[in-house]
Amino acid sequence: MIALPRLEAIVDRALEEDLAGGDLTTEAMVSPDARAIGRAIARMPMVACGADVFARVFTRLDPGARVERLKADGETAAPDEVLWIVEGQAHAILMGERVALNFVQRLSGIATLTREYVTAIPPGCSTRITDTRKTTPGLRALERYAVRSGGGRNHRDALGAGVLIKDNHIAMAGGVRQAIEAARAHVPHTCRIEIEVESMAELDEALGARADIVMLDNFAVEQVGEAVRRVGGRAIVEVSGGVGVERIAELGRLGVDVISVGAITHSAGAVDISLEIEGIG
Amino acid sequence: MIALPRLEAIVDRALEEDLAGGDLTTEAMVSPDARAIGRAIARMPMVACGADVFARVFTRLDPGARVERLKADGETAAPDEVLWIVEGQAHAILMGERVALNFVQRLSGIATLTREYVTAIPPGCSTRITDTRKTTPGLRALERYAVRSGGGRNHRDALGAGVLIKDNHIAMAGGVRQAIEAARAHVPHTCRIEIEVESMAELDEALGARADIVMLDNFAVEQVGEAVRRVGGRAIVEVSGGVGVERIAELGRLGVDVISVGAITHSAGAVDISLEIEGIG
Amino acid sequence: MIALPRLEAIVDRALEEDLAGGDLTTEAMVSPDARAIGRAIARMPMVACGADVFARVFTRLDPGARVERLKADGETAAPDEVLWIVEGQAHAILMGERVALNFVQRLSGIATLTREYVTAIPPGCSTRITDTRKTTPGLRALERYAVRSGGGRNHRDALGAGVLIKDNHIAMAGGVRQAIEAARAHVPHTCRIEIEVESMAELDEALGARADIVMLDNFAVEQVGEAVRRVGGRAIVEVSGGVGVERIAELGRLGVDVISVGAITHSAGAVDISLEIEGIG
Amino acid sequence: MIALPRLEAIVDRALEEDLAGGDLTTEAMVSPDARAIGRAIARMPMVACGADVFARVFTRLDPGARVERLKADGETAAPDEVLWIVEGQAHAILMGERVALNFVQRLSGIATLTREYVTAIPPGCSTRITDTRKTTPGLRALERYAVRSGGGRNHRDALGAGVLIKDNHIAMAGGVRQAIEAARAHVPHTCRIEIEVESMAELDEALGARADIVMLDNFAVEQVGEAVRRVGGRAIVEVSGGVGVERIAELGRLGVDVISVGAITHSAGAVDISLEIEGIG
Amino acid sequence: MIALPRLEAIVDRALEEDLAGGDLTTEAMVSPDARAIGRAIARMPMVACGADVFARVFTRLDPGARVERLKADGETAAPDEVLWIVEGQAHAILMGERVALNFVQRLSGIATLTREYVTAIPPGCSTRITDTRKTTPGLRALERYAVRSGGGRNHRDALGAGVLIKDNHIAMAGGVRQAIEAARAHVPHTCRIEIEVESMAELDEALGARADIVMLDNFAVEQVGEAVRRVGGRAIVEVSGGVGVERIAELGRLGVDVISVGAITHSAGAVDISLEIEGIG
Amino acid sequence: MIALPRLEAIVDRALEEDLAGGDLTTEAMVSPDARAIGRAIARMPMVACGADVFARVFTRLDPGARVERLKADGETAAPDEVLWIVEGQAHAILMGERVALNFVQRLSGIATLTREYVTAIPPGCSTRITDTRKTTPGLRALERYAVRSGGGRNHRDALGAGVLIKDNHIAMAGGVRQAIEAARAHVPHTCRIEIEVESMAELDEALGARADIVMLDNFAVEQVGEAVRRVGGRAIVEVSGGVGVERIAELGRLGVDVISVGAITHSAGAVDISLEIEGIG
Repeated sequence: MIALPRLEAIVDRALEEDLAGGDLTTEAMVSPDARAIGRAIARMPMVACGADVFARVFTRLDPGARVERLKADGETAAPDEVLWIVEGQAHAILMGERVALNFVQRLSGIATLTREYVTAIPPGCSTRITDTRKTTPGLRALERYAVRSGGGRNHRDALGAGVLIKDNHIAMAGGVRQAIEAARAHVPHTCRIEIEVESMAELDEALGARADIVMLDNFAVEQVGEAVRRVGGRAIVEVSGGVGVERIAELGRLGVDVISVGAITHSAGAVDISLEIEGIG
Repeated sequence: MIALPRLEAIVDRALEEDLAGGDLTTEAMVSPDARAIGRAIARMPMVACGADVFARVFTRLDPGARVERLKADGETAAPDEVLWIVEGQAHAILMGERVALNFVQRLSGIATLTREYVTAIPPGCSTRITDTRKTTPGLRALERYAVRSGGGRNHRDALGAGVLIKDNHIAMAGGVRQAIEAARAHVPHTCRIEIEVESMAELDEALGARADIVMLDNFAVEQVGEAVRRVGGRAIVEVSGGVGVERIAELGRLGVDVISVGAITHSAGAVDISLEIEGIG
Repeated sequence: MIALPRLEAIVDRALEEDLAGGDLTTEAMVSPDARAIGRAIARMPMVACGADVFARVFTRLDPGARVERLKADGETAAPDEVLWIVEGQAHAILMGERVALNFVQRLSGIATLTREYVTAIPPGCSTRITDTRKTTPGLRALERYAVRSGGGRNHRDALGAGVLIKDNHIAMAGGVRQAIEAARAHVPHTCRIEIEVESMAELDEALGARADIVMLDNFAVEQVGEAVRRVGGRAIVEVSGGVGVERIAELGRLGVDVISVGAITHSAGAVDISLEIEGIG
Repeated sequence: MIALPRLEAIVDRALEEDLAGGDLTTEAMVSPDARAIGRAIARMPMVACGADVFARVFTRLDPGARVERLKADGETAAPDEVLWIVEGQAHAILMGERVALNFVQRLSGIATLTREYVTAIPPGCSTRITDTRKTTPGLRALERYAVRSGGGRNHRDALGAGVLIKDNHIAMAGGVRQAIEAARAHVPHTCRIEIEVESMAELDEALGARADIVMLDNFAVEQVGEAVRRVGGRAIVEVSGGVGVERIAELGRLGVDVISVGAITHSAGAVDISLEIEGIG
Repeated sequence: MIALPRLEAIVDRALEEDLAGGDLTTEAMVSPDARAIGRAIARMPMVACGADVFARVFTRLDPGARVERLKADGETAAPDEVLWIVEGQAHAILMGERVALNFVQRLSGIATLTREYVTAIPPGCSTRITDTRKTTPGLRALERYAVRSGGGRNHRDALGAGVLIKDNHIAMAGGVRQAIEAARAHVPHTCRIEIEVESMAELDEALGARADIVMLDNFAVEQVGEAVRRVGGRAIVEVSGGVGVERIAELGRLGVDVISVGAITHSAGAVDISLEIEGIG
Repeated sequence: MIALPRLEAIVDRALEEDLAGGDLTTEAMVSPDARAIGRAIARMPMVACGADVFARVFTRLDPGARVERLKADGETAAPDEVLWIVEGQAHAILMGERVALNFVQRLSGIATLTREYVTAIPPGCSTRITDTRKTTPGLRALERYAVRSGGGRNHRDALGAGVLIKDNHIAMAGGVRQAIEAARAHVPHTCRIEIEVESMAELDEALGARADIVMLDNFAVEQVGEAVRRVGGRAIVEVSGGVGVERIAELGRLGVDVISVGAITHSAGAVDISLEIEGIG
């Protein structure tokens, strides 16, 4: 899922945040020798995501803890289904519970919402749903993974991993053509050149300058259809800007290649997962 | 708001995440000498929050950037009102835009939702709305601040900053009384002892052991009223567990002291703020 | 004792400080394949503390090193008693020796001095000895643990984990009552409100404003007795400020609840522990 | 004193430790706009040390804070003399007070104890007092500076900055001569070769192998005199091992070149410095 | 050049490496109040690169140091020409000299070697010279900037910023077509799909599967010409693998679009720059 | 080789640099369950160096990976000889390949070039070849180890680990004698005092002030012979400054003790090592 050094750094920061001063409650009343088992249980229908993070939180506190994964990332779970099980020191399980849940509730929430969008694409359409850079600061790698778990695809990871020319860039570059040519001259040849257009005129100009991807910004539905026809396969067509799940099917049928949806990361909300803990022998 | 070293670390991590490979687009077409002004504009009604983070993102990229704050944290903003203005190098403003917005949209979202809950408390009731530890890993300090900006109060910050005895602790300690006594014996005298109770019997036992705070877990409304009467001022009464904004008024009138709401941090969603950028001179 | 990620960070920093440039002596003359055993030996009577840190130093340098703990943290040791034994690569044991001893001599020193204070409390008195925030920068979590190992209790961990209103706060808040009310309105309900008072008048004012804890600052012994009577169980009574071990018994008999002692951390001094190393096989 | 990046890292860690959760008390009752002045005052005779750290703590919290240094590091101060003055935001001064004092009380304590040892050297003797590697984990750079402020000198900084062959090294190298020759062959030519000897026989062997420095380990006073004569200027003579201040004069008169004293760092204890804070304007 | 937080982290690590134990020589004999000026002088013909790093090293040690840039990054310098001048505390200039030179000698070395390659491209050819991922661990961002300063272009930054299918990937994916289709299905649409081919047959297969970029691996010159013809503009043609500067012109004339050269980063060697330091006032 | 915590930090940074955004190619087409074996093969004659780093890169990505070392660090390898073999998850091997090679190509390059210099010393001469502080920022510890693997010795590690008085120090100290005396008075007695001299007059002055090491800066060969005679064993003689391998024999025969060569680290270039990867069962 995520390379181990990076995952470790993210988990360590979260544990530091919650445990820098220890755990007053657990230390006061639970024996360091006690052992426990914790079952992560879905409390609503969801797409599960985050098994690696779940495991890492507990093995970081108790290197001897063992984690069983009943649901792979991306699998659906019904209410009351067990997702993952951890067994180890009671201290580690009680201390890691909240941090682990904070991660997996968020990640499963993103996977679940992404799945809704993906499912709305009509059969036979090759439209892909992607994320945006509207992710939680510090958690982008995890959230992009959650999008993939939900069946979505990733847009560029960061400002250094792709080109997206927006209105401000166009204005400062001196025009659509100048912006595209500057990009082509300077960025790695491994990147496609994407440009955001706000009108048919800008679209034509972008196509004339051989943009690889055109992003239609806030086009009305009929305009989208017209734009797809005008592009005629010469560029990838991306639609962005507050697209709700109810508009996905229509955009798919119009032949849009990519719909990028900020909401699947910035507004997903946490799904309800609880950890049922039980002391053992 | 947040101590500078900590704020700097959080902002640096976010910038690293988005800018480790530079900004292909901006570097290709915008002169390093160009200057710009950016206006953060509310696109919906909201409670503004995050001026310090907003400023830090840009001054970190351009130490000479200047930020003007038209809305203090906690002030309401109507659609199209300007919240904050930044002026500096165009490179810094274009490169920091997304990171800055990712922070302030989330923080203002939390402040806005918190305000909804706070406003629902009937006049004359001293009930307080608090957050929980259900915060975004790595951003707890910022999110707790956002809750305060919205008019809420904070619950304990971390496992080392307060005692909250839950069902698992009770089971492992051997009972309500044993758990409370263990806590009183071991935790700092600066902490109140809070315990979660699931029945009137447990409530009575907790009061008998002189708990300082009792948390009523998933009590029906009529039970909450009965519990408040039974406590009779001997402990602080906290209600928790999926409380929607529509139940706040009734709980307030019943005399509940504290309602802790996980949703104000874990499910707030981002509010819509855009940065209007304009090249200058 | 201490959550593993945090312990690891502290130990790594200490190893970095001593070993960033390698170990010229050991590398020049000891074979990387040589193995050794090291016995940590008490050279004076002491309360042992620091087994986890001792083990971590060596397993960090040689993940295959094994550590045996003959004395649990908090146990007393007589001169020449073996505390802990490490067996592993000779390189790791020689390179980690000084760092390990620097930690455990300090921690055992704190545990030993704390034990002296705790032992001075007369039988039947429930007075507790606590630490303060006068700890070594960077080592607070370890030193608070050492205090507990010595039989002491912890005061608040940090400025965000408890309220303590001092003279400067009172002055800036506009008076004792205003300060207490501001605290009650703003801090988490999980915190007791503690205030430092310098006279009987301030004590009365604090009690009138329902402070939860009153700290008597530099009160003469007879005043302490009078203060305890005046409080009459309405608040926890804490005494602070340069209290030597010789005054503990009397304060205990006067009914003081808490005596906080900066000296147990800031002036404990290192106890003498040596590591006897022997090549094996 | 200490290179800025390093100093900043040490101070940031200390602030993080105390302020990660904010400052409940100050934030509840002191206006963010309030300003204050703080005077650090010696409460006992001492050698002042730590002005840079003192300043850094406060400027890190309030970049606009100004610090005045009335005592340079290494100067003596009498009780009630003002050492340093800080003026800035009241929040910064109240929040940084304890961290700043924790640093400077320790550093001034080390400088003060070092000065005692240095002063005990009889006039005309060129004996130098040095520290050892028995420093506080994480603070070695600061503590070595404090030793210099007290008039002492530094021993090697770390295991990679000097050679010191101890009994275990000798045993594993196969003898005194073998150890010295291995060191000479492998370590940087910029390092002198130091060896610890436990008897006159070992001393002779070390001199025969052209050791640059001989450390007499737990030699009786009469033996020290004999050893100095036997060395006859062919090596630097260092005495180590629990040397109290009362033995310094005699060792100096015997012609010992270096006395290394672990106690000046590991057992110095904090001196009493208080910060008198006053609101202004 | 490089975003400030990242540049700061790289410089801090380098300073830590050289200055963790202070600067024995400078501290022993140069007054902390002394001021100096340092002139960085080219000792051979070169393309200058690294002004920002040069400046950062010194301003990090002395925030008041001032740096003048006589040569912009990418400008050529003749022997004995002054590149940059720093004026500030003598301590900072002496302590930072080696670290600053270690950076700029390497970066200017890369820029200089890149310029050689770029200059070898015949007029009228649009071939671009790019770097590879064969950069110094920890310094990739700086070295990629140096390549741009020399007139080269960057290849993908990291494994997450572009797709490059190599022989091992093809083998594990089950063939050229399968590999390309898997890439197209899963990677961001902002990435072009690049594949390394080792024969004409593989080239045809790659073109049939609509690869965006074909990398000819160790093709003989005549094969390159044939390959360019066969591609016929349907894909970008990249040549890689030990291409010396003497082959650039011919490859350019053959119509190759991109030549990626590992040597410009992994074998550039340092150019000779010295810092002439002079005490002032 | 290098203490584990430090090695881990260096490797983690390098992995972060290349893998922060994942590995688009591998993730798209290689099963997470696939396993592979990778053989690192010398493509030219070389001195192998870096087995620990090679192993660490892969075990960091796959803790279950196993590494076999066919060549110990410092052993020579002929073209096509296998150096090290790694077996583990195909993902880990593909993702770590470039980072591992970037390290070992550089380290083996340094070891190989050092070996050339060392081999040039005539039999019977005790001259040692050392490195300088002209190392890659962030990799000094590894590069110094590579020098030792090649048969060279290390000079001082950092500015805090040895004294080297240069012309600027002499100028600011007021002369050769003053500089040497200031050093002797202030630096640890474990350090030899080294001074750079530019003329016979300075050499005489340095010897008169009892310098321990004299560095002859840019002396002509005949002057070096004269200088060695004049020193007559009273100091260690070091030659520095652009010494090519062709001058080593003559300098050795003249009786020079140390030749420090910046080129062995700053201009070594990478040797050619490739990783042959093969999927397994």
